Amino acid sequence: MPGAFAFTLTGRDGQARTGCLQTPHGLVETPAFMPVGTRGAVRGVTQRTLEEAGAAIVLANTYHLYLRPGDDLIAERGGLHRFIGWPGPILTDSGGYQIFSLGPLVKITEEGARFQSHLDGSRHALTPEKVVDIQAQLGPDIAMVLDECLAAPASEAASAASLDLTLRWARRARDRFLQLQAGPVAGVTVTNPGQAQFGIVQGGIYPHLREKSAAALREIGFESYAIGGLSVGESVETMYEVVGDTTPFLPDDRPRYLMGTGMPDDLVECVARGIDMFDCVLPTRNARNGQVFTPDGPINLRNARFARDDRPIDEQCPCDTCRRHSRAYLRHLFHNKEMNAGTLASVHNLVFYLDTLRRIRQAIGFGLFAQFRQDFHRRFSRTSPSS
Amino acid sequence: MPGAFAFTLTGRDGQARTGCLQTPHGLVETPAFMPVGTRGAVRGVTQRTLEEAGAAIVLANTYHLYLRPGDDLIAERGGLHRFIGWPGPILTDSGGYQIFSLGPLVKITEEGARFQSHLDGSRHALTPEKVVDIQAQLGPDIAMVLDECLAAPASEAASAASLDLTLRWARRARDRFLQLQAGPVAGVTVTNPGQAQFGIVQGGIYPHLREKSAAALREIGFESYAIGGLSVGESVETMYEVVGDTTPFLPDDRPRYLMGTGMPDDLVECVARGIDMFDCVLPTRNARNGQVFTPDGPINLRNARFARDDRPIDEQCPCDTCRRHSRAYLRHLFHNKEMNAGTLASVHNLVFYLDTLRRIRQAIGFGLFAQFRQDFHRRFSRTSPSS
Ligand SMILES: [Zn+2]
Ligand SMILES: [Zn+2]
Repeated sequence: MPGAFAFTLTGRDGQARTGCLQTPHGLVETPAFMPVGTRGAVRGVTQRTLEEAGAAIVLANTYHLYLRPGDDLIAERGGLHRFIGWPGPILTDSGGYQIFSLGPLVKITEEGARFQSHLDGSRHALTPEKVVDIQAQLGPDIAMVLDECLAAPASEAASAASLDLTLRWARRARDRFLQLQAGPVAGVTVTNPGQAQFGIVQGGIYPHLREKSAAALREIGFESYAIGGLSVGESVETMYEVVGDTTPFLPDDRPRYLMGTGMPDDLVECVARGIDMFDCVLPTRNARNGQVFTPDGPINLRNARFARDDRPIDEQCPCDTCRRHSRAYLRHLFHNKEMNAGTLASVHNLVFYLDTLRRIRQAIGFGLFAQFRQDFHRRFSRTSPSS
Repeated sequence: MPGAFAFTLTGRDGQARTGCLQTPHGLVETPAFMPVGTRGAVRGVTQRTLEEAGAAIVLANTYHLYLRPGDDLIAERGGLHRFIGWPGPILTDSGGYQIFSLGPLVKITEEGARFQSHLDGSRHALTPEKVVDIQAQLGPDIAMVLDECLAAPASEAASAASLDLTLRWARRARDRFLQLQAGPVAGVTVTNPGQAQFGIVQGGIYPHLREKSAAALREIGFESYAIGGLSVGESVETMYEVVGDTTPFLPDDRPRYLMGTGMPDDLVECVARGIDMFDCVLPTRNARNGQVFTPDGPINLRNARFARDDRPIDEQCPCDTCRRHSRAYLRHLFHNKEMNAGTLASVHNLVFYLDTLRRIRQAIGFGLFAQFRQDFHRRFSRTSPSS
C-alpha cells in the first residue's frame, strides 16, 4: 500500500539512533516527541500552532474519544484526521491506562475490562478486539493494543500474572487487526487502511519478564513495539535501567516507543538507550501551572521575582512566546489567571521539547550525541537555582 | 511630533465615513473595531493571532492594569506596548465603568472616586488627574478621561447632575494632560509623548444633555470625542436614536468612538449614524460560551444538532478556524470543555467583526453602503432559526 507503515534507520551513535517513520499521513523523523491531544486537542495549543511549532505527529486517546463523541461519529466524519483537522500522522493509545485508573469503577476479567464511564456512570465493556475495532474506526496511523496497567510498585508475581493476561490479549488484538485487514467486518468502518498496530512490552521492573514479554510479542508479530508500564511512580534511575534492559530485546529495525515519558532529561537518557518515540503531557500540563523549561532547567513563571524580568523565558528559543513576550508579562498573565498564560507557556514548552529532539537528531547525525548528552546535563537541572 | 495623533477623512456615504487614524504606533483605517484585552491580553487570542486576524488597534483597561501589575511597573518596562508585546496602536479606557460597577465598594465625591479593590479589598482613590497620570505611565496611543457612569435607566435630573460632575472632571483631566505635555512632573513617567486624549460625551438618553455635553467638551478641546453611557441596558432602538442624535454635535473632522458596543448589526447601524470606532467584549465573551456569528446570525456550537455537522462555522469565512475545523469538531470541544473551544471560536468571531468592518469600509469607498446595510440586515438575524 502506498504510504503505509515503514521505518528506516538513518543513523546510529552508540545505542542512540535516528530514523524515518513512514505513515499513511506523512513522515516522522525520529527520535520524535508526540504532543498529547487526549480528546483530539492539545490543551491551549491549536492544530495550526502545533504545526508551526514543528510537531510531526500527535497522540490522541481511544478511551476518551470512544466515550465522547464516539468512534461511530468519528468514522462517519471520515476518521480522526478529518475530524480534528490534523492532516499529519496520529497515534492513539488504547485507553488501557485510563481504564485501569478508574479504580473501583473497573473490573478485569479474561475477556476484557468492564467499567463505568467517569463522565456519566454509564456501563461499558472493552475487550482487546473491541479496542482494535474502535481504533479501526478512529483511523490513527498507529494503534496501540489494550494492555493491563498495574499500579506501581507491583510485585514480581503480580507483574508476571498481569503480563500473561496482557500477552493473551495482545494475540487476540493482533488476530482481530489481521481479520479487519483481510476484509470487511460488519459494523466496523476501517477509515485508515494503512494503519499499523504496536504491541506493548510489560513486565514491571523485572528484566526477565520484560524479555519474556518482548519475545512473545515478536512471536505474535506487530508492526512495532512500545515499552509500557513505566513513569508510573518508580524512580528515574529504575526507569532508565528498565529501558536500557528492554531495548535490546526489541527488533533493531523497528521504532521503539516509550510510553508516557517524561522530563526533558529523561528524553535524552532514553534516546541514549535506544528509544525512538516519546509522548508526554508534561510540557503542556506543567505549562498551565506556570512551569516552563529552559536549557538550565525549569522555572515557574508564577514566581514574584519575575514581575520585573524583561527577558524572554529563554533568549535562544525560537518560539513565538519568546520572540514577543517577557517573563514579566507572562508572570502578569499567570497572576491574573488569564487564559493566554497557559497557551503562551505551552507553546514555549512544546517548542522546547521538539527543539530538543531536533538537536538530538542532529547530534546523532554528526556522531556527537555523547557530547550533546554531557552538555545537556551539565546545564539542565531539575532543581535549577533559578526556579 | 512625528507619528503623533491625526485623523483624515477618506470617504463619505450618507452619514457613514471612512478615515485614517494616525497614532504614534501606526495607522488605523476607520470605521475600526478594537478587540478588548482588559489586562493586556484578549482572552484566548494571543497577540500574534490578533495580528494575523487583522486587528489594527486593541483596547486595554486602566483600572485593571493600575491594580495589577501597576502603572509604575509597566512604566519601568517602557510602557504598555513593550510590556504586552503589541507594537501597534492601543487605547485605554479610564476605568470609570469598572469603578462605578463596584457598587457599595465605591464612593463618589467632587474630588473623584474612592473605592476598594475587587481583588484584595485594598483602598484606593482615583481622581481625574490621577487617571491621566496612570495613563501617561501606561502609554497608550489614546487615553480616555475619567467619567461618571450612571446605571440605566437614569432620570433626567440624575443624568444632568452626573453630566455636570463629569464635565468638571473632564476639564481637570485636560488641564493635567496639558501640564504633563508641557514638561516633566515629579513621579510621572510619560512613556508615550504622542498620546492623544479623548473626552466622553454623557447625558443618558436626553438629546439636550448630549448636546450640552458635546459642546462643553469641545470648548475644553480634546484630540477627539467618544460617546459613553450607552449599551448599559437601554433598548437598541434607543441606543441607535441617541447615537444618531449625538454625532451631529461632534466635530466632523475627528474620529467618533462609540464605547462598549455591540452586536454585529449594531456596528452597521452606528456606522450609518457616523461612528468611526468601536470596542466590545461580545465577540470573545460570547465565543467562550459557544456563540459564534455567521452572515445569517449567531449559532451556538454547544447545540447537539451540530454534532454531525461537517461544515465550517461559515463557508465564506477566511479565518483559520473555518479553514480547518468543522462545527462537529468545535461542538465536541465545547461539549468536553476543552480550552481550544474558546480560542477557536474567539478567532472566528474576531475575524467576523474585523471582516465586517473591512466590508463596511469597502462599501463606503464605493458609495454602496446603503446597499451593504440592506443586504447585511436581510441575512443577519439575532434570532436566527439556525441558532
Ligand atoms: Zn520559547
Ligand atoms: Zn471563521
